[in-house]
Amino acid sequence: MYRAPVDEIAFTLKHVAGLEEALASGALGDLGSDLVDAVLAEAGRFATEEVAPLYKAGDETGAVLKDAAVTTPPGWKDLYRRWCEGGWNSLTGPEEYGGQGLPMMLSVAVLEMWNSASMAFGIGPTLTMGAVEALEKHATDDLKRIYLEKLVSGEWMGTMNLTEPQAGSDLAALRTRAERAGDGTYRIFGQKIFITYGEHDFTDNIVHLVLARLPDAPAGTRGISLFLVPKFLVNEDGSLGARNDVFCSGLEHKLGIHGSPTCTMIYGDGFGGAEPGAIGWLIGEENKGLACMFTMMNNARLAVGMQGVAIAEAAFQKALAYANERRQGKAPSYTGEGMAPIVHHPDVQRNLLTMKALTQIARSISYNCAHAIDMARVSKGAGAQHWRDRANLLTPLAKAFSTDVGVDVASLGVQVHGGMGFIEETGAAALYRDARIAPIYEGTNGIQAIDLVTRKLPLGEGQHVHGYIEELGAEVSGLNGVDGFGRSAGLLEAALADLTEATRYLQEKLAGNSMQDALSGATPYLRLFSLVAGGAYLARAAVAAPSGERIALARFFAENMLGEAAALKERVLGGAESLGLAGASLITA
Amino acid sequence: MYRAPVDEIAFTLKHVAGLEEALASGALGDLGSDLVDAVLAEAGRFATEEVAPLYKAGDETGAVLKDAAVTTPPGWKDLYRRWCEGGWNSLTGPEEYGGQGLPMMLSVAVLEMWNSASMAFGIGPTLTMGAVEALEKHATDDLKRIYLEKLVSGEWMGTMNLTEPQAGSDLAALRTRAERAGDGTYRIFGQKIFITYGEHDFTDNIVHLVLARLPDAPAGTRGISLFLVPKFLVNEDGSLGARNDVFCSGLEHKLGIHGSPTCTMIYGDGFGGAEPGAIGWLIGEENKGLACMFTMMNNARLAVGMQGVAIAEAAFQKALAYANERRQGKAPSYTGEGMAPIVHHPDVQRNLLTMKALTQIARSISYNCAHAIDMARVSKGAGAQHWRDRANLLTPLAKAFSTDVGVDVASLGVQVHGGMGFIEETGAAALYRDARIAPIYEGTNGIQAIDLVTRKLPLGEGQHVHGYIEELGAEVSGLNGVDGFGRSAGLLEAALADLTEATRYLQEKLAGNSMQDALSGATPYLRLFSLVAGGAYLARAAVAAPSGERIALARFFAENMLGEAAALKERVLGGAESLGLAGASLITA
Repeated sequence: MYRAPVDEIAFTLKHVAGLEEALASGALGDLGSDLVDAVLAEAGRFATEEVAPLYKAGDETGAVLKDAAVTTPPGWKDLYRRWCEGGWNSLTGPEEYGGQGLPMMLSVAVLEMWNSASMAFGIGPTLTMGAVEALEKHATDDLKRIYLEKLVSGEWMGTMNLTEPQAGSDLAALRTRAERAGDGTYRIFGQKIFITYGEHDFTDNIVHLVLARLPDAPAGTRGISLFLVPKFLVNEDGSLGARNDVFCSGLEHKLGIHGSPTCTMIYGDGFGGAEPGAIGWLIGEENKGLACMFTMMNNARLAVGMQGVAIAEAAFQKALAYANERRQGKAPSYTGEGMAPIVHHPDVQRNLLTMKALTQIARSISYNCAHAIDMARVSKGAGAQHWRDRANLLTPLAKAFSTDVGVDVASLGVQVHGGMGFIEETGAAALYRDARIAPIYEGTNGIQAIDLVTRKLPLGEGQHVHGYIEELGAEVSGLNGVDGFGRSAGLLEAALADLTEATRYLQEKLAGNSMQDALSGATPYLRLFSLVAGGAYLARAAVAAPSGERIALARFFAENMLGEAAALKERVLGGAESLGLAGASLITA
Repeated sequence: MYRAPVDEIAFTLKHVAGLEEALASGALGDLGSDLVDAVLAEAGRFATEEVAPLYKAGDETGAVLKDAAVTTPPGWKDLYRRWCEGGWNSLTGPEEYGGQGLPMMLSVAVLEMWNSASMAFGIGPTLTMGAVEALEKHATDDLKRIYLEKLVSGEWMGTMNLTEPQAGSDLAALRTRAERAGDGTYRIFGQKIFITYGEHDFTDNIVHLVLARLPDAPAGTRGISLFLVPKFLVNEDGSLGARNDVFCSGLEHKLGIHGSPTCTMIYGDGFGGAEPGAIGWLIGEENKGLACMFTMMNNARLAVGMQGVAIAEAAFQKALAYANERRQGKAPSYTGEGMAPIVHHPDVQRNLLTMKALTQIARSISYNCAHAIDMARVSKGAGAQHWRDRANLLTPLAKAFSTDVGVDVASLGVQVHGGMGFIEETGAAALYRDARIAPIYEGTNGIQAIDLVTRKLPLGEGQHVHGYIEELGAEVSGLNGVDGFGRSAGLLEAALADLTEATRYLQEKLAGNSMQDALSGATPYLRLFSLVAGGAYLARAAVAAPSGERIALARFFAENMLGEAAALKERVLGGAESLGLAGASLITA
């Protein structure tokens, strides 16, 4: 069973992701280390003692649809109530609407815990937070007054309605219609799919944010507007009014995260005999809906990245416990009685260390991304721009690398369990199932890589990324000659040079508008970047708390895993031509 | 839906795995190319038209246990009957007992097809084939007379009973008891777990091969005997007699291959009011049971490797079809109307080409392993020894690399499908679930790597492996200057040099009894070996049929994927120390 690694999380926040400095500098107001520790400890307790025990009910029973109503797994409704009562829904919400206004760094830390305990449970409130963010930034005061307090407290939940059958990665193809009703409201008609927590029994009302197209809207992504469509209309006094014309027509039968209802939502079909047309209110300006969505896209991507970290952590814990308990065979290092615990076998150690290093790297990158978001919020002028650029640069790494890590680490976790790993009862297989969605949704990892190359490398006139690499380089050179790091410093320096070379290559291709070359190298580049940054962060952790364990892990990573960097660089620099030639043979359409 | 790639399979057999030469030389008797083609075509038809359509019933309904009886999924019993009538069970069986005595190369080719169409269906008969092999080599004439013909025809099925809760990878810990009954028979008592097709409704009788320990047996693996324990005793006239004291007490709830019943088997518990003790007959000599098992272990490992190839092929086909059909966004190479089929996106091409190259490599290695088994059988003296060594060398690669490929390719297949990949209906997720057991059973992939390093590198006084690498090297150097291969020749030569260096390093460590160093490098070494051999095989295929497509794929692999080889070599040569240091911190037991 998962136990929240509160100490490791606090350590990474403070010493790898800059929280300690931020607290000391007063950048985060009167937030102190004591409060941080208290929040993390209580979140750890809640995740470990209250969320994790309900994981199995979520996976086995799942969410069930009957007569357009969704019943969440046994115990989950009450769990959600207690979770809201604990103040977890309002953690980062605006103080004006009852939120606690705590920084993103704390948010991702506790988000990791909820998702380790149950990704299917953790994902629901993430969407509410996105809705809060969108409304706070773009909604009218009237809408804020009606909806924000209840979304912040968790009394109501929010959803995001983007995807349609023909419009997934490409929202330009979106068809859902919005018509002006003449009274300032709109009527929405259409079908949305893959809507997470689109219908459920956690809350009395559900607030849908829906992308749709006005009749006179331009084609493509510049003709998309964002609407608020509540499940129940809200009376002036805040009480619930009539049922709106939106309903859930189906739940997907998914590989994993079974407790999370993934809904097909029908808007404006005359549900329950109503006059057809779901009543909606515009958020932001007409035809500017995508910009409103992008406001919260970065944070949503980081939140999905945390799912990757979370699954990896849970899988590592489970595999480590099993490897210390299960005994088979003899091992060189084992001198005890009988069969050796399998953790003594070098090959099992390799699997576990790979899992551990990848988990810590993904966590470090993601927390650093959260740190940059927080610093951007509290900084001014050039400082704010610097941290915004940093957050933008790290977001695709946090999303894509962490979720790839989630899948890979969960798969290794199954392997460490041997035959028991394939048996559902053990729980390792469930993590392998849950993990698989995270590289796909909120922008596939391929799209993250394209975003990194085409939108993030140009930041600060192409200089921001080099500034970041130089910062890492300065730290790494400090390792030279430090005891215990073995060949780490030299290997990290070489990998940083590879990263710089690959970065310049891609920047040149972009500048020369050689899009095929730039796009072909995007995925290996994102992984190269993440491994190199991650190796530097492992070293940073080892320098901050120079225990034998942390130093050995940083060295293991540098000497056993970082070698991939050179191969990835070669792929970026020299792979595009053969990719294009061989790729042509795949096309039959 | 899967369509058996009959042409590609035939091409790989003939031109990459040596079948054409073997046929031409008369080594395979009067087997001709026409018969090979006819067998492959009919197997392809049966797999495509008859097995594949029943995949979903297997996955969704699964095998069901009630009152110690197992019902297989709807339609499967009849499918099995038709499959046996088609002669597929007897393909490689000894002609003396009604088998067709066809070579292993054909066996693995059709095995790939059954497993691509349904791994849960394909795995059952594989166990019967193992039982046939064990009985043919080690059983008394009496037992052969009673059982072999019916096992070869498929009228009865066989099982392998090795694993117990405390004895998985380490059979020394085995506890199942066998007692001499005084009349030449034995009584078996104990519990076996993870018994594939241990109970089912395909056949009237089931022939269990069971490892157990006699009361006076030495401890460890030298005190294990092999017994034949039929579900029903067999009368002198071949008709079924009394029910034996063996029954299925439970089915595992597994991640995948749901159609395959994975049974807990109870021996000698007085099932149905019988006098306790399952009646068994000794196979081979007392205390020599493990040697009998090892007879068929190599072939069983190759068969599991084929599951990896099979899943990868099925996943690639599904992803390729989807990528040509699904349209999203714009792509540099697409000039048509509307959104581009996603196969035009370079990142999607990278995923698909990675899948395609890995699948073809795993297939090439596995078929070459089958070729070596066939050549060993028909050769004499030093030739036979050479081919036995070759088969032994390639078996761990075929098993471990192919099954890792199965998992990785299935995971990429889900990714190519985007959100649809996570929906069970699409079928990509089911392959991802099924694939995950193959790296575990029949010797985990970690154990395969240890086998490769500790038992296969010493073959032929350490020279056999170098002879193999030199053969590949001679082929590769022939690519120099050949049009279209780009930098392939140089990259392959460098990778072969890395493989040689890593091989010599491990051989030195073994010679110096530095087991920790040798074992630490085993897993990266196995992958290094497989990638390099695979790259050479892709080049061999491209030379044999120099189409643009094959040349481009070989070049893509060399320029985009082979770079990993240098990193793997570094891991083998320089990774052990940091692995040991960091690994120590994992041990709490």
